Amino acid sequence: MSTKTLEFHFDFGSPAVYLAYTQVRRIAQETGAALVWHPILLGGVFKASGNTNPVGVPAKSRWIFEDMARWARYWGVPFVLNPHFPINTLALMRGACGMLMRQPEDFERYVDTVFHAMWVEPRNLNDPTETMAVLTQAGFDADAFMAMVADPDVKADLIARSDASVARGAFGAPTLFVGEQMFFGQDRMHFVKDALLA
Amino acid sequence: MSTKTLEFHFDFGSPAVYLAYTQVRRIAQETGAALVWHPILLGGVFKASGNTNPVGVPAKSRWIFEDMARWARYWGVPFVLNPHFPINTLALMRGACGMLMRQPEDFERYVDTVFHAMWVEPRNLNDPTETMAVLTQAGFDADAFMAMVADPDVKADLIARSDASVARGAFGAPTLFVGEQMFFGQDRMHFVKDALLA
Repeated sequence: MSTKTLEFHFDFGSPAVYLAYTQVRRIAQETGAALVWHPILLGGVFKASGNTNPVGVPAKSRWIFEDMARWARYWGVPFVLNPHFPINTLALMRGACGMLMRQPEDFERYVDTVFHAMWVEPRNLNDPTETMAVLTQAGFDADAFMAMVADPDVKADLIARSDASVARGAFGAPTLFVGEQMFFGQDRMHFVKDALLA
Repeated sequence: MSTKTLEFHFDFGSPAVYLAYTQVRRIAQETGAALVWHPILLGGVFKASGNTNPVGVPAKSRWIFEDMARWARYWGVPFVLNPHFPINTLALMRGACGMLMRQPEDFERYVDTVFHAMWVEPRNLNDPTETMAVLTQAGFDADAFMAMVADPDVKADLIARSDASVARGAFGAPTLFVGEQMFFGQDRMHFVKDALLA
């Protein structure tokens, strides 16, 4: 069993991140690795690294969504292309940082709630009212959440985490680190597992 | 066994294409599929589809070359990052079209020679003198090759093939088709095999 750490750099807005999310706990469990969740703002990582969103190329975008559906079938996980994609995840990612800082015991339930609403139900999380309804339904206090994501320390944490990701070599998401070895993509989980077992 | 066709859209200049090349004959053999080689000019496909070369993003470029080495180890195939990368493959890809049109019996030997010189030896195929030395050493007639790649019909064939690839949805290489199902990348060979066996 591994005594290593699997760092998962994620943004809720990417279908590839969702697919990796469906696998990271399994891989950590199978290898005995410690899973570390690392929220980032994907748009910020693109900008800082000089990368562009792959869905900006029409032919690539068409293929990506077929490919995402293939990976979902491959892993046997539910997946629906959110018709409201792309969704601005700034508040949601600040929320992930805030949960880690202030309510770590609720963090995984928060992550599960948001990924499910984004890529399974799917809900229009571009609409703050709908986002608050999703969180309330899952037992979160919407007013407390709104206050948390407006907290300057929480905002700064998301920026710092995104910058740290880029400083270590990231240019997109999902990005996974095993020590300083970096892996990009939901299609590299076998390499991630190998690195954890090495 | 499959009675399907596996179309391999390739350009010698991409390490990902080389890695896919090391697998396509095996997959065709294991599935009983007919392998169809389809030369394209990757730069032309990028331009026509509005895509950009992924190695244009520095952090992505660094990761890609680590990742290519991981895939080479995964498949147990030789791979050396050509220090002269990127290499202008226009004449070499015209050569692939010319071989298919005029010397189909020599086509696979030509492909094997060029991929080996590009990603195993590795040779500076930006230098026409070195390219001719590689082909001569492999038993090809350098003068006949030069005449062939200057033939307007051969030049037009590469353009037509690249355009056809884009018209069917390609935005890069390697691109593989099983019927009208398109697969992009050396990292989708398991999906290609599944499609051939479906």
